[in-house]
Amino acid sequence: MLYLIGIGLCNEKNLTLEAVEAVKNCDEVFLEGYTSVLQCKKEDLEKIIGKKINSADRNLVESNALIQKAKEKNIALLIIGDVFSATTHITLFLEAKKQNVEVRVIHNASILTAIGITGLDLYKFGRTASVPFHKTDYPIEVLKQNQQLGLHTLFLLDLDPKNDRFLTIAEACDYLTKKGISPETKALGCARIGCPDYKIVYAELNKLRSIDFGKPPYCLIIPGKLHFVEEETLSFYEIK
Amino acid sequence: MLYLIGIGLCNEKNLTLEAVEAVKNCDEVFLEGYTSVLQCKKEDLEKIIGKKINSADRNLVESNALIQKAKEKNIALLIIGDVFSATTHITLFLEAKKQNVEVRVIHNASILTAIGITGLDLYKFGRTASVPFHKTDYPIEVLKQNQQLGLHTLFLLDLDPKNDRFLTIAEACDYLTKKGISPETKALGCARIGCPDYKIVYAELNKLRSIDFGKPPYCLIIPGKLHFVEEETLSFYEIK
Repeated sequence: MLYLIGIGLCNEKNLTLEAVEAVKNCDEVFLEGYTSVLQCKKEDLEKIIGKKINSADRNLVESNALIQKAKEKNIALLIIGDVFSATTHITLFLEAKKQNVEVRVIHNASILTAIGITGLDLYKFGRTASVPFHKTDYPIEVLKQNQQLGLHTLFLLDLDPKNDRFLTIAEACDYLTKKGISPETKALGCARIGCPDYKIVYAELNKLRSIDFGKPPYCLIIPGKLHFVEEETLSFYEIK
Repeated sequence: MLYLIGIGLCNEKNLTLEAVEAVKNCDEVFLEGYTSVLQCKKEDLEKIIGKKINSADRNLVESNALIQKAKEKNIALLIIGDVFSATTHITLFLEAKKQNVEVRVIHNASILTAIGITGLDLYKFGRTASVPFHKTDYPIEVLKQNQQLGLHTLFLLDLDPKNDRFLTIAEACDYLTKKGISPETKALGCARIGCPDYKIVYAELNKLRSIDFGKPPYCLIIPGKLHFVEEETLSFYEIK
């Protein structure tokens, strides 16, 4: 059996009771650490589950190795956030199904809904885009399409935890303005959403770029057309 | 302090360790039971947290009562799914902020990302719509807009747990076809996503309407333009 287990956004205490129970039942436990970054140490997770956790890089997860193991044993792959919030894990799920390996998915919080704390209506988000280190026009296309429809746009900022590189909110602001988005556009900079020390600031791109957001992960939201409740909630995060 | 605590999609084991810890710290605990429906009994939750849980209907949550209490004591409101996945709770959060009541949000899994298990890319969903008991054209407008852009559409089917009424997938299919959506349109019917006994079927609306999905909650997804990995995953749920 292959367990795909979402572990939430912040630390070892975001594990669900079901996740802890499932992991106790597993022969080997892996942690996927390349699509996001945890705010706790691997050791903190190990303490809670009482098992050694192996790091799984992209090569391992995208190879056939975990599925082969899961034919004989109970294998858990811990995934930061919710299991399918990073698109890459559906391939593993699909491959397991193809090879008749039973898969159990245990869900958890995802950045895609945790951003509801900004006050923006989650039903009124358009497409989501990553802003990658290597700049492309794709995020701009997504933004323009969403803006035309009055929808909110979530940008997830790229990360490379292995090399301790994180695209910053300042870099994302600069990227957008260089691509022709007005520096007076108001946006939400968000860091560590889902953690007790999360930070959200609402300001124009040219002001947002000089705010210190502390540690990653980061995202940036450009609101679309605002309802008055959304507007009022945003005002609590606003810096003028 | 007011704790807004997401409790996930299925049962008492979806509570996070952080949620259990927070609730233990609370003087009164309420459960919001009108925006979704749990697959476990209130008693099962009470056993895990070791406290009595009071039911909170819409009137209570939308009144000032919880905020008043939270000025003096630690109050927890348990919310099915993630805290802000139903738009209504942002108003409580906002009101607490206005009245200078400290709010702590504890996130959990939401239907909005748990549907990633269908194989559909969560980044390519357009606006989400509820299909209410009282039929309006709004869901159709949302669908058409998303379809034009090739985006996926999630419909959450209305529910009234107090009166044990749940809009069924058959009713939603009939609603769509009566509003002019072709009965040959392929859609995903989903029940109890997030539970071990979840059910997903991919078929034309006219076939989907006669499938027995078992217990609620339900949602319906009309896919947009499909990537081949999405297509391949959908085929595992397909009934022809």
